Parts: sequence; C-alpha cells; structure tokens
Amino acid sequence: MSPKKTAIFPGTFDPFTIGHLSIVKRGLELLDEIIIAIGVNEAKSSYYTIDERLEMIRSLFHDNDRIRVMSYNSLTVDFAASVNARFILRGIRTVNDFEYERTIADVNREMTGIETIILFTEPQHTHISSTIVRELLRYGKDPSEFVPRQMKLIIRK
Amino acid sequence: MSPKKTAIFPGTFDPFTIGHLSIVKRGLELLDEIIIAIGVNEAKSSYYTIDERLEMIRSLFHDNDRIRVMSYNSLTVDFAASVNARFILRGIRTVNDFEYERTIADVNREMTGIETIILFTEPQHTHISSTIVRELLRYGKDPSEFVPRQMKLIIRK
Amino acid sequence: MSPKKTAIFPGTFDPFTIGHLSIVKRGLELLDEIIIAIGVNEAKSSYYTIDERLEMIRSLFHDNDRIRVMSYNSLTVDFAASVNARFILRGIRTVNDFEYERTIADVNREMTGIETIILFTEPQHTHISSTIVRELLRYGKDPSEFVPRQMKLIIRK
Amino acid sequence: MSPKKTAIFPGTFDPFTIGHLSIVKRGLELLDEIIIAIGVNEAKSSYYTIDERLEMIRSLFHDNDRIRVMSYNSLTVDFAASVNARFILRGIRTVNDFEYERTIADVNREMTGIETIILFTEPQHTHISSTIVRELLRYGKDPSEFVPRQMKLIIRK
Amino acid sequence: MSPKKTAIFPGTFDPFTIGHLSIVKRGLELLDEIIIAIGVNEAKSSYYTIDERLEMIRSLFHDNDRIRVMSYNSLTVDFAASVNARFILRGIRTVNDFEYERTIADVNREMTGIETIILFTEPQHTHISSTIVRELLRYGKDPSEFVPRQMKLIIRK
Amino acid sequence: MSPKKTAIFPGTFDPFTIGHLSIVKRGLELLDEIIIAIGVNEAKSSYYTIDERLEMIRSLFHDNDRIRVMSYNSLTVDFAASVNARFILRGIRTVNDFEYERTIADVNREMTGIETIILFTEPQHTHISSTIVRELLRYGKDPSEFVPRQMKLIIRK
Repeated sequence: MSPKKTAIFPGTFDPFTIGHLSIVKRGLELLDEIIIAIGVNEAKSSYYTIDERLEMIRSLFHDNDRIRVMSYNSLTVDFAASVNARFILRGIRTVNDFEYERTIADVNREMTGIETIILFTEPQHTHISSTIVRELLRYGKDPSEFVPRQMKLIIRK
Repeated sequence: MSPKKTAIFPGTFDPFTIGHLSIVKRGLELLDEIIIAIGVNEAKSSYYTIDERLEMIRSLFHDNDRIRVMSYNSLTVDFAASVNARFILRGIRTVNDFEYERTIADVNREMTGIETIILFTEPQHTHISSTIVRELLRYGKDPSEFVPRQMKLIIRK
Repeated sequence: MSPKKTAIFPGTFDPFTIGHLSIVKRGLELLDEIIIAIGVNEAKSSYYTIDERLEMIRSLFHDNDRIRVMSYNSLTVDFAASVNARFILRGIRTVNDFEYERTIADVNREMTGIETIILFTEPQHTHISSTIVRELLRYGKDPSEFVPRQMKLIIRK
Repeated sequence: MSPKKTAIFPGTFDPFTIGHLSIVKRGLELLDEIIIAIGVNEAKSSYYTIDERLEMIRSLFHDNDRIRVMSYNSLTVDFAASVNARFILRGIRTVNDFEYERTIADVNREMTGIETIILFTEPQHTHISSTIVRELLRYGKDPSEFVPRQMKLIIRK
Repeated sequence: MSPKKTAIFPGTFDPFTIGHLSIVKRGLELLDEIIIAIGVNEAKSSYYTIDERLEMIRSLFHDNDRIRVMSYNSLTVDFAASVNARFILRGIRTVNDFEYERTIADVNREMTGIETIILFTEPQHTHISSTIVRELLRYGKDPSEFVPRQMKLIIRK
Repeated sequence: MSPKKTAIFPGTFDPFTIGHLSIVKRGLELLDEIIIAIGVNEAKSSYYTIDERLEMIRSLFHDNDRIRVMSYNSLTVDFAASVNARFILRGIRTVNDFEYERTIADVNREMTGIETIILFTEPQHTHISSTIVRELLRYGKDPSEFVPRQMKLIIRK
C-alpha cells in the first residue's frame, strides 16, 4: 500500500476565503490529508490574530478528520517535514501568482525534494482574496459573499 | 480505502522529451496510475506516426505497471472518463502555457468535474520542447540531450 | 448635444458566445449604438458561413434598434469609418489577449485616431471562446451552456 | 435621451502625469463627465499633500466644465455612487497593471454593478508614472517632460 | 586587443521596419559588426522574396561597412558559427516575445555557448511589426510611417 | 579604434548570488569593463551593510582588472555618467522582471540616451534571488548553493 499522502496548504489566511475553501475541497479529492498551515510573520501586521484565524478555520472543518489546522513559524519546507507532508498544495489565480509560486516551488524542490501541487482557482473566484475581504471589513461593508458561509467570521466593531 | 487515483497525461509527444519524463516521474509520487495519452489530430501533420510514438514511449516504461501508454481520438475529458481517470496531469513551463492550460482546465472542470493537476516544469527543462527536438532532427543535429536516455529515439535518414 | 456614440464590435464570431453577448450588453450601457462586425477572412476556413453567423446573431438582437449586425472585408478601421463609428469595443480575457489587443489598438489609434474601449470579460466567462464551442460541436457534444440561450444555434449533422 | 454618462477616474496622482492627462482627454470623447478622484490613503506617505494635488490638477482643468477634481476617503465604489457615476475609467500600461485592474474591476462589478472602462496607455507614455516623477524630484532633476505643460508643478526646495 | 565582436540579427524581415532599424542602430553602439540574417523558411509563404528583402535592406545600409545583409537556410546557431559571430541580437516588444526569445536563447546557449543580447524595443515602436506593414500593403494602404524612410519599399500593384 | 565599452551592473546585491555572477561573467564576453554598482537606499533596511557587500563582492573579483565594485547614492543614470559608462547591464528572470526593467530602461534611454543591455538569466538560476538567500540565513539554513563558492559569505550568529 502506498504511504499516506499528506500536503500542507500554507498561507496567511487573513481571513480564509471561499477561494481557499475551494482549493482545500478539491485537494481532498487527490490527497489523503491536508494541513492548513498559517504562517506566522511577526514583521507584518495582520487583521486577525493567529488564534482568531485558527479558531475561524477550525470551526469550518471541525468534523473532517482529514483536515488539520495549524500555525507555524519556520521555513515552510521545515514545517512540512515536521508533519511528514511530502507535498505543498497551492492555488493559482493570476500570471503574477504563477511566477511567484514557481520561484518558491523551485527552491523548495531543489532544497528538500518536496513537491508543489498547483490547482487553478475556479474562474468565479479569481478576483477573491483576503485583501479584498479586509478592505471591505475596514470600511464597514459586508464581506459575507467572499467567505465560507459556515465559517463564523469575527467582526470587529 | 480510497479509490485508485488515476490521471491521464495528455499530449502530442512528437516526440516525448526529458521534460515530459520529469512530469510523469514526479506525478507518480502523487498518483496511483498515469496513462500517457497521445492525442490524435488528423488535421495536423506530425513528425512521428502515432505508432512510432506509442512504441518509443512504451519502450521507456515497459517495466512500470503504474504507467500505461495509449492514443485517443476524442475529447480529452471523454477519453479520461473511458479509462476511469478522475485527473488530468499537466506541466507548465511559461506564462503562455499557464493561460492556455487554465482555459482548458476550466472548461473541463465545468463540463465534467474532472480536475487538472499542475506541476511546474523543472527550471533546467523550461526551454525544452518537442518543437525544439524536431527542429534539431530536421537539420540533422543530435537531440539526445533533450530526450530520455533510455528511450530508443527513431532517427529518420 | 453630443454626437451619437457608435462603436463597432469586430470579431469572427464563429460562433457568437455568451462571452460576446456580455460585452455587447455591457457596452450598450456606455454607447448609443453597437455594430457587431463579422470580419471576413477568406484565407481562414470557418465552421459557420458568414451568412449563418449573420443570421444567428441577428436572431438574437432583432428587437434591439441600437444594435446592428454586419460583415466586412476591409481593414477594421476603414469599416469603422464607413459606418461613422468612432470607437472599437473589445473584451479582454487573458494576458495574451491584452498584448494582442494593445498592439492593434495602438496601430489603429496612430493611423486614424479611432479609440479602442476595453471591457474585462466577466470571470465566469474567461474560459469561454468560439474555439471551445466549435471543438464541442465537432465531437457531437452539446455546447448550449456557452452560447446565448435565445440564439438559434445551427447544428450540423 | 440617455442619462448623463459620468465616470470617476480614481488614483493617487502624486503627481498627475502626461499619461494621466492622455487618459482623461481620450475618456472625454466617450463620456459626458469625468471626476478625477484622488484617493486618500492615510497609511501611506505621499510626496504632495491632498490639497496640493487638488490644486495642481484643478489648475489644469479650470476651464473645462466636464471635469471635476475631488478627493475621497472611502471605498471607490461608494464614492462613485455618491457622485452618481456609473463608470470607473482606468488606463492600463502593462501586464501587471492588467491583472491588478481586472481583479478590482471584477469585485466592483460583482458588488455594485459599476462598470470599469479601460483605455490603453499610449505607447510613448507606457514608461511614465508618478513614481518616476517623484524619483526625479527627489534627486533634484527636472521632471517637466513627464508632467502636463500647463500644470503648475509645485517644486520643493 | 579583444577580438572583433560580431552579432547576427536574425529575422524574417518581411519587410524590415523602423523597429528593426532602431535595434540595429542601437546594437552598433555595442557591437563591432552586425550581420542582418534573413532566415529562409520554405514551408512558410512570404510577401517579399528573399532577393527583394536582401535588396531592400542592403539599400538601407550600403554605405555602412559594419553591417552586412545575408540570408541563411540552416539552424540559426550554425549560421552564426559559419560567420564567426559569437552573439545573437534581438529586440523584445512584449511579454509574449520575451518568453519566446528566452526559450530559443536558452537552447542556443546550452547547445553552442552562443549568447543572445536583448534590447528593448523603443516605446513608440512597440506596436510596429512586419505583420502590420503587410496588412496595410494588402489593403492598398500606405505603410510608410512604419518602414525606414531611406529604404526603397517595393510596392506590388 | 572604438572607445572602451563600460557598463554598470546596478543592484542591491544583498547578497550577491550565483545568478548575479553568471550575468557578470557573460557580460564580460561583450563588454570591456563592468562596474558592479551597489545602490544605497537609506529608506530600505538591508541584511548586509554596504561595506560588507563591497567586501564580499570584491573578494570575488579582486584579480580581475575589468571589474570594479562601487556603491552609489544617486540616480542610476547619473552614476553611470560619472564613471563614463554608456551601458547598463541587467539580467531578466521573469515576466515581472521584464516589465519592471523595461520601464526603467525606457526612462533612462529617453532622459540620457544610456542603453540597457539585457541578458536572460540561465534556466537553472531563474529561481535564485537575494531574497531567498536572506530567508535561508534568517532561519539558520545553509545558503551556499545559491552564492558563489569563491565568495566569503559573512554569516551572522
């Protein structure tokens, strides 16, 4: 029998969107387990804390034992190794994404042999990003069409 | 247990290159079975016949029971369905590839639900293509550094 | 009062798709009149004849007096001048489209002063093209989700 | 008679360049009114104050009653609605611009129905940007070939 | 003393445009000698014969002994070797050009060590191409603003 | 005899990588002298000080009298003029690089006539950047495969 196929799905997820959800769901068709991995970047300010993001994403997948939600504060490939993941899962929306992801995937493969699997973002999600959601939140708008319906989005007053 | 994960790897493969070989090998890490699927396009002239291409590629994988080599003359998604493949595997080299593959992957997903899995071509293979190999063959040059060493490349006089 | 704002919407339309329809409808918000202009290219074989394309597109817009459907066999800018159109309307789906349209728009502007107005294709239409529809037709598939519902698509046996 | 066609032309305009001027002039061929809308971004430092930018741009268009110059501190679509503009006008220079504008245009259309009209930057202006002008100003160079001749550019000592 | 620096400037030049002229002139600042090399492609139909193209381009450079005009019918790198050229000179207009040139340059460097030198097309020439000139000629238009003034363009009746 | 052909190779080089080294070596085939020019940007924090970067790069080229290593704190074109360089040498890795370099090259050419010469980064170096090296250094990893073997990389504890 082949060994368990585990991928990490790394990102900032500030917050998690329906675009992210689509990649995870489609990735599960292919993989045995996906670890949603929130990268901690202390140099960059965020809208939601790591704990809030962990809580929101976990609320979405609490009944799915093939998905785990974790945070990490190291090189992505080191985190992947620490959880025995041989794959990194990423979605690509644009040409700009493509070139960015490619560079990182090449470095990761060359250094550690880890493979990056790319899924195309679905057309109706191409324009959706965490940045857009934060922008709406900042101006007091309702971003609910861009975030998963089942996710309890924390709204700041 | 999860069902067998089979992907087709469709292409013209006129001829099969070390870039194609790399995608197949890396795809096997992820998938249970890969069917290398040579698309028949009667409107387009080719350098090698379908039979020659089948023979050359089969010579490369004859001892690997997780790889099959077939030709098809239908919509790619219909061929995939006929062999019970739920995935299409593709490598991307350039931005131009990216946009082309994305359009096709979106249509295929929307029409049949089949998922396209993308791997990035390795940096040292980005410039390698069947077109280059044919160009070298036409001018009597040796293309052996661009085709798999174990493959018996048919050379026309 | 400002003069009537007329644009041509040039293309091959072999056949007209829901992507084209969206651009025309959205263009009407901005323009007074749109002339859908089917370019005749005798060097290139087509799936539908010019007459079939004229008939299909006219069936779609017969009750809209702000839209005309014509064919032309000249430089696009000359056709535009002949119908007193000061604008060319185009939709852009991809980076590749962008560069292609830009080059043509620059030449047209420099030679005649005609202006090209660009609308972005809607995300859910980005992967839709006449090429895809023809491919489906050739393999006996139903392309109806990619063509306007009200358009009577001619199906060859 | 059709309702008045008003577009906002949003940007930072720090400062306004001959590239911006070209888009506004060409946009006036198509639109009845253009509102040049300076977005206030308190988080980002600027070279010119909002008041300086308003003053410089107004000096350029003071005798054109189809152009207004305003600043705004809200979502762009909300500002557009507040001035009854149904269109957003934007110029595109590069592939990178294209992808950025597309994402924003898609979100804006989906949320409010507002349409974004794209004009291609003229070839001779493709390399001109506010960034270049500021860079020249910082090193005490003369940027006058990149800004409108009629605009009174404020020069800091 | 360093050896003579010779580059070939390969292309179809059907016909030679002011964009090509600009690259040659700017290349001469850097190189000792440039050989304008017209690639013969018997499979592709052309507007001008090889002899016509040789004649037109030679008329332009007849008094410049650092430029030669030749045709060739072999791999570009083989032609370069045969004239002792260590460089290939190319102009790039668009992202699409960039990816195309890069692939070829990588193959050429890997196979023979020949180096490709890239100059950016000047902004005002980005939209100019032999294709545009031929299109104008076919419709009886005057293409003189796109071809070198000193070149005697052959006009077919 | 033609005047000496000097180019500057400007960059941040924080730190210098094997990708940079490849461009310099290949540039020397074409040019008489290359001045590696470290741009001082006081607004941006760096990993290595200017002095450290000067020291590291000089250690690499100390016995090559056709290469000089300098720092500068002015417009790049002004620095080039001050050292009598008529060319700027740059390597391009990606489409994103291409558009960025093009804009700057166009401005520089238009303002001062200085020419930018582009070499393509070699395929096996496309994913290598100073950013990657710094990232590895920050996490205590060994970046030695990405920096020149002969360069004494300063490692912070």
